[in-house]
Amino acid sequence: MPTEQKDHIVRSFDEKLRDLRGRVLAMAATAEAQVSDAVRALLTRDRMLAAQVTGRDPALDRMEREIEEAVVLLLALRQPVAIDLRGVVAALKIAKDLERIGDHAKSVARRAGALAALPPTGSMNGFERLAERVKENLRRGLGALEAGDARAARDAWAADEGVDETYNGIVRELLTHMMEDPRSIGPATQLMFAAKSLERIGDHATNVAEAVHFAAIGSALPNERPQADTTGG
Amino acid sequence: MPTEQKDHIVRSFDEKLRDLRGRVLAMAATAEAQVSDAVRALLTRDRMLAAQVTGRDPALDRMEREIEEAVVLLLALRQPVAIDLRGVVAALKIAKDLERIGDHAKSVARRAGALAALPPTGSMNGFERLAERVKENLRRGLGALEAGDARAARDAWAADEGVDETYNGIVRELLTHMMEDPRSIGPATQLMFAAKSLERIGDHATNVAEAVHFAAIGSALPNERPQADTTGG
Repeated sequence: MPTEQKDHIVRSFDEKLRDLRGRVLAMAATAEAQVSDAVRALLTRDRMLAAQVTGRDPALDRMEREIEEAVVLLLALRQPVAIDLRGVVAALKIAKDLERIGDHAKSVARRAGALAALPPTGSMNGFERLAERVKENLRRGLGALEAGDARAARDAWAADEGVDETYNGIVRELLTHMMEDPRSIGPATQLMFAAKSLERIGDHATNVAEAVHFAAIGSALPNERPQADTTGG
Repeated sequence: MPTEQKDHIVRSFDEKLRDLRGRVLAMAATAEAQVSDAVRALLTRDRMLAAQVTGRDPALDRMEREIEEAVVLLLALRQPVAIDLRGVVAALKIAKDLERIGDHAKSVARRAGALAALPPTGSMNGFERLAERVKENLRRGLGALEAGDARAARDAWAADEGVDETYNGIVRELLTHMMEDPRSIGPATQLMFAAKSLERIGDHATNVAEAVHFAAIGSALPNERPQADTTGG
């Protein structure tokens, strides 16, 4: 094959890889915005914002499908090897986690919408802390993704513990609240599920970090991070 | 290339595909058993069985990692096209859903373990119904997987609605219970999260069906199944 032609094939493959990467980063940015807005809707009891988050969720589903199609095309047209191949497989995994993150953001937004109609339930300090930690972890995971940095990925992967503690604190507080005031049971269970969704978003941020690590290094991180959800599930 | 050698390559590729398929089916069987046992532990308040389910979860994580490695190897060594390629990509997606199903089974088992120490909370009829529906959907999804049957996959995909209704009924019942008897708040919230986990298992069974459909037909099912979780999340 003439060098020129070979160069062209390599270039077009690199372009396709860059395009895939761009799609994953765009999806990550959208997922992050969804989490941010869902949390804001919950904390400020903003029904309109909650509805916007719910309405935007199908865009993430579409993005995931497009990434899947791009991956299948890329694998069918070219045979990427070693680090490129791991990157392509990681893209597929990350897209799925981002889609789940979006799903949980939608859940938080739905709870926020339901809560806006109910009387306020105690302090939201714990929530604010949980949301900050989850968003921070998500930022770290996506930062590692953007940089393709294995060490950053490892750090993001290890950072989830603060989330578990804060989550457990919120559940305990909400339970106490419910026992003291049965009228708070409705809103408090909504909040409990919203907290669980945030905790799950933290888990998926961890998965993203793990996939970035896998793509950069080619080995998975140890599977069991020490878990500290002491509420039972 | 001599025909003999070509035959050998095709045969060894087919063997690798069969091996991957076998791994996915084995993982599916394990996930299904985990769900079954977790539900039984919950319904019969069996703490030992709950602990067994929790203890077996790392096996599913390991199986997922092995499937990932097999997929990456298969893609690196061979360049599967069209239906084979979709099958390989679907294997990756299905393994991830099965891992999540296992995670939720572990959550149910943990709740079951915590509940065994608490006084019983109302009737478990709704739960039995929910568990039956979820297990039925899982069986359908895995049946479609085993048969590689697009029509069966489509049926399994459409069958999730019964789960949503039953789940909503349980949540309403538990909320009523909590308001009538604040002592039930602790166990009832555990049950609520267990119900949510079962509902999620139903969602992942739907995803498996979707991936089977994608592998068999090459097109995704419409993304939004009509959703009927009216509890907010």
